[in-house]
Amino acid sequence: MKILLVCVGKTTVPYFATAIDVYIKRLKHYVAFDMVCLPDVKTAKSLPEQNLKNQEGEAVLKQIENGDVMILLDNNGAEFSSVEFSKWLQEKELRSVKRVVFVIGGAFGFSEAVYRRADGLFSLSRMTFSHQMIRPIFVEQLYRAMTIIKGEAYHHEDTLWQKSYNRMK
Amino acid sequence: MKILLVCVGKTTVPYFATAIDVYIKRLKHYVAFDMVCLPDVKTAKSLPEQNLKNQEGEAVLKQIENGDVMILLDNNGAEFSSVEFSKWLQEKELRSVKRVVFVIGGAFGFSEAVYRRADGLFSLSRMTFSHQMIRPIFVEQLYRAMTIIKGEAYHHEDTLWQKSYNRMK
Repeated sequence: MKILLVCVGKTTVPYFATAIDVYIKRLKHYVAFDMVCLPDVKTAKSLPEQNLKNQEGEAVLKQIENGDVMILLDNNGAEFSSVEFSKWLQEKELRSVKRVVFVIGGAFGFSEAVYRRADGLFSLSRMTFSHQMIRPIFVEQLYRAMTIIKGEAYHHEDTLWQKSYNRMK
Repeated sequence: MKILLVCVGKTTVPYFATAIDVYIKRLKHYVAFDMVCLPDVKTAKSLPEQNLKNQEGEAVLKQIENGDVMILLDNNGAEFSSVEFSKWLQEKELRSVKRVVFVIGGAFGFSEAVYRRADGLFSLSRMTFSHQMIRPIFVEQLYRAMTIIKGEAYHHEDTLWQKSYNRMK
């Protein structure tokens, strides 16, 4: 099974870009993973919100193939624990899903067309996270899910917080 | 009102340290904020989990003064939306609370003594975030809460994701 993460707009904050790179490198030991950041829509600032969402939506949908399980990261989505999320992913693999695509939307969220195509909505938190920070947070969750599936020591369900990476080694 | 964030252990991941610094700088425009990272307990690796938690707990409790409202960031805590969190903070200010102290625990969570002293438990997500990443995530939420209280444009409740910082300017 492949996993694709589609983001609307570049990662402009350099320290988040670094964090994303670190987790992607780790993640690729476990799964065929790709991340696509769609270019920002030109003249975005002067566009009405609806038009911008529609243009972004068209670009997102171009990334989607028939048979993809497409999940939007959306504040109104279902919340999972890290273990539940890993089970969800594992179940997709067992059902021979070829590709799961997660989408992190732009500033104003998703167009109607994107919602119509989507197979589900996931929420990482009841809190609103920044558009940029959500990316490393989610890539880390994917990595964490893989270590849970493999039964590795990264994730400690019985402790409240994660060992620092230094202490893991 | 002052806000103190107490973390157990240093921030060892440099790009998260950078993110924390960025948000602390912004946050200090709004509120008297301080962050204290307690030094790692020596010989932590060889200590039984319970002893380590107790030693960390003692160090945490030394930071706490009478009258502090002490909140633990804990997976079993209450979840808030960003707006609810800002209202919670504002209500503390209206009640003339002098200081709110948030605590991010170590790898194994909090000792019994820390739980006994705490006034409440907050959870940022049903998912488990890394011990290091939780720090920038939470500092960003504090900053976001302040902008919500001030009615500033950073937080968009009616949109799903946050404008990228570049586009805000």
